[in-house]
Amino acid sequence: MTNLYGQENLTMLTDFYELTMANGFFENGRGEQIAYFDMFFRNVPDGGGAAIMAGLEQVIHYLKNLSFSEEDIDFLRSKNLFSEAFLAYLAKFKFTCDVWAVPEGTPIFPHEPIVTVRGPAMQAQFVETMVLLAINHQSLIATKANRIVRAAEGRAVMEFGSRRAQGFNGAVYGARAAYIGGCVGTACTIADREFGIPALGTMAHSWVQLFDSEYEAFAAYAKVYPHSCTLLVDTYNVLKSGIPNAIRVFNEVLLPMGCRPKGIRLDSGDITYLTKKARKMLDDAGFPDCAICASNSLDEYIIRDMIRQGACIDSFGVGERLITASSAPVFGGVYKLAAIEQDGTIVPRIKVSENVAKITNPCFKELWRLYDHDTGKAIADVITLHDEVIDDTQPYEIFDPEHIWKRKTITNFRAVRLRRRIFENGNCVYETPTVSQIRDYCREQMDTLWDEVLRFENPHKYYVDLSQALWDEKQKLLSRHGH
Amino acid sequence: MTNLYGQENLTMLTDFYELTMANGFFENGRGEQIAYFDMFFRNVPDGGGAAIMAGLEQVIHYLKNLSFSEEDIDFLRSKNLFSEAFLAYLAKFKFTCDVWAVPEGTPIFPHEPIVTVRGPAMQAQFVETMVLLAINHQSLIATKANRIVRAAEGRAVMEFGSRRAQGFNGAVYGARAAYIGGCVGTACTIADREFGIPALGTMAHSWVQLFDSEYEAFAAYAKVYPHSCTLLVDTYNVLKSGIPNAIRVFNEVLLPMGCRPKGIRLDSGDITYLTKKARKMLDDAGFPDCAICASNSLDEYIIRDMIRQGACIDSFGVGERLITASSAPVFGGVYKLAAIEQDGTIVPRIKVSENVAKITNPCFKELWRLYDHDTGKAIADVITLHDEVIDDTQPYEIFDPEHIWKRKTITNFRAVRLRRRIFENGNCVYETPTVSQIRDYCREQMDTLWDEVLRFENPHKYYVDLSQALWDEKQKLLSRHGH
Repeated sequence: MTNLYGQENLTMLTDFYELTMANGFFENGRGEQIAYFDMFFRNVPDGGGAAIMAGLEQVIHYLKNLSFSEEDIDFLRSKNLFSEAFLAYLAKFKFTCDVWAVPEGTPIFPHEPIVTVRGPAMQAQFVETMVLLAINHQSLIATKANRIVRAAEGRAVMEFGSRRAQGFNGAVYGARAAYIGGCVGTACTIADREFGIPALGTMAHSWVQLFDSEYEAFAAYAKVYPHSCTLLVDTYNVLKSGIPNAIRVFNEVLLPMGCRPKGIRLDSGDITYLTKKARKMLDDAGFPDCAICASNSLDEYIIRDMIRQGACIDSFGVGERLITASSAPVFGGVYKLAAIEQDGTIVPRIKVSENVAKITNPCFKELWRLYDHDTGKAIADVITLHDEVIDDTQPYEIFDPEHIWKRKTITNFRAVRLRRRIFENGNCVYETPTVSQIRDYCREQMDTLWDEVLRFENPHKYYVDLSQALWDEKQKLLSRHGH
Repeated sequence: MTNLYGQENLTMLTDFYELTMANGFFENGRGEQIAYFDMFFRNVPDGGGAAIMAGLEQVIHYLKNLSFSEEDIDFLRSKNLFSEAFLAYLAKFKFTCDVWAVPEGTPIFPHEPIVTVRGPAMQAQFVETMVLLAINHQSLIATKANRIVRAAEGRAVMEFGSRRAQGFNGAVYGARAAYIGGCVGTACTIADREFGIPALGTMAHSWVQLFDSEYEAFAAYAKVYPHSCTLLVDTYNVLKSGIPNAIRVFNEVLLPMGCRPKGIRLDSGDITYLTKKARKMLDDAGFPDCAICASNSLDEYIIRDMIRQGACIDSFGVGERLITASSAPVFGGVYKLAAIEQDGTIVPRIKVSENVAKITNPCFKELWRLYDHDTGKAIADVITLHDEVIDDTQPYEIFDPEHIWKRKTITNFRAVRLRRRIFENGNCVYETPTVSQIRDYCREQMDTLWDEVLRFENPHKYYVDLSQALWDEKQKLLSRHGH
């Protein structure tokens, strides 16, 4: 048995039905039929108004490395389900699809085709599991992190959740996504080495407990880290022992070394109350520059409340509720067939459902964002047929696809295609930005949204409209399949 | 940049403060001081009565492979925080700790030392992040899976969640943990190849959509998989089209091939209602042996409700709510200092907290389970000092550590040490069972718990007591640190 830590190739991280279907397409002579699949999601987690795209770099890596080892083929053969012709095809597998996707860091909204894969049905279907897995996971965490960062109103938010992450990648790619969403750093060391996300940290309670006294523990730490001395003050009693010992060490150890304290950290108790007291004690002792960091099961709601109640906090360490997005730990992206090609013509496909919200948008599509020229703010997104062009030199009428009498004509706007070509005939044609570039881009793009869209409660629903041509196509298919 | 897929060695997947503390211990001449750390958790997720231990195999793999590459050392040096002497120590790092742990598949309860690491403070502290990460994640999923399996009352539960997992390992090790908890298989193909967990699956809606008609899609599938033909019947209309087309294909394709249908799957709509109708239609058509599989955002509560309402379901495919344990996605295991050695003597350490539930159990400890001789049922767990022996030939008095007047004398019982020695002086001395053996052991051990402990609502609180000697030690420390 090889081990998964050393798994260079994740080709087999796929739902088994992708393989049985691929074999089925192959055996039915339909494997090479061109199909179009869209990834989209239906709801923003936590009832939010916007989500953030993340995880594309990992999808690209996966697609670049798709291949079946001899061991994979032997394993599949042992299932007695796959034809030898199909296994021979897998042994020589080469990814030849086209892929379009919204770049990481972009605000995204329900029902938008954030990824489209075009290619032989066997292949385009096969990649479903990993496209969804990578983008669902990182978009979930980036979106959650951004909420928490917004709640912190300019104070630094650090991602501290590795120990509660759902698996190793949950920690590492979670740290990546949290950084994209606006965190300033992570506790996860390997995420710094791999992605350059600043690794941060102070001390655990055990550091304090290992010494014979809190003072001794603080003094020992200050001597080793005089330039980055942040002390954890809640091992015994914050106000009676933790802060007084910290101040003593600042005076007796740091100042004589010519250094100023960096901060203190509080990880338990009534943090709002304690930070106010701590701030006063530190100020009175001559350390107004000593920052206060708070941690302990924080999320956007608790942070908002602490700030509202006047907590004196400079930075937040956020753990489990960020790294698992615990209040809504699933990003429900799905991957659905939108069209096939027959004799060179694109034939739209729709998934009808008794649940109207589950009806898909058919056709090969394009995704546009319209920005107001004066304010720079995003006005609406429009999903069009792939070959439509929105001419932003002319007034453009948008309408609500569910309530088509709600119409609005937009002028003085800039229309931008939101998606990039990622793969062309199986070759990657996209250069992935650095994580730091993605983070900057995310901040810029989130700034184009109105505050009303970003509220935690009852956010304004951002417009995601269909072009008239696409809407017409959809209606045609619906009436054909109508119940 | 190396990529994380190919990361054989996860040594650097650690909170940065583990490294700064290790360097601090080193610089203070305390690195080799022997320390004892316990992993324990405080609450069973979902308000349940018992959790299931899982993830130990991955911890063992991690500990066996602990080492710092030249690249790791260079990275750490670039931080300007670590002494050259410490970096030289890391370059030659050898894990020399002792580790005890509860085997995977064992029911575990709050406050029990499920893992103890004894060794040089630098090392025993350092491994915190990964010990917690691996065991928190898999124990979470095994516990959740077991709840869902119990709700299904003997019907098969399949893990279908890869696409919504939090990262690749979330999918793969989540599938492993779900299997330990009692699932019969997974959609995750690589988990079959790696761990021998049966990979299962049928078809997606896109299979049906790719063909020109549902009948044609079903017939094509039946021809390729006559011996394992399960058809997804809800792409268009379950009762008017899906089931009738399935029955037609069973009659027109399968029977002439000498095969019987395996099943149908329902993934949307009012599944309870639809399965009753579907069952009747299949029975009337002469296919009482055709199984019905249900999926679509299931969990233990929905499954219990469906069964109570008479849904005709033979197996459940459970996705996102299992693979993320979405109703309670964090297993809050912590890792705390319990003792140090000074001049060869074990000196207990305690973490005092204003929150009484957060006070730790000090000392180097042992964990026992007492089974009733007649019923075979577990009566209570007792945490003792490491060198205490519970003599099960004599009556043994247990008492509630919080309400010490609640006492009970146990006779006719068997006392079993729950933990195994895993590492001895850094060498692994434990042979990990196969996942299938762990799954069997889990089922046996869960059967030793009373139904009252396994209820979803208001479960009986299983006794986890302290021995008198341990209780006395704890009181001594508390009065010394008393507020």
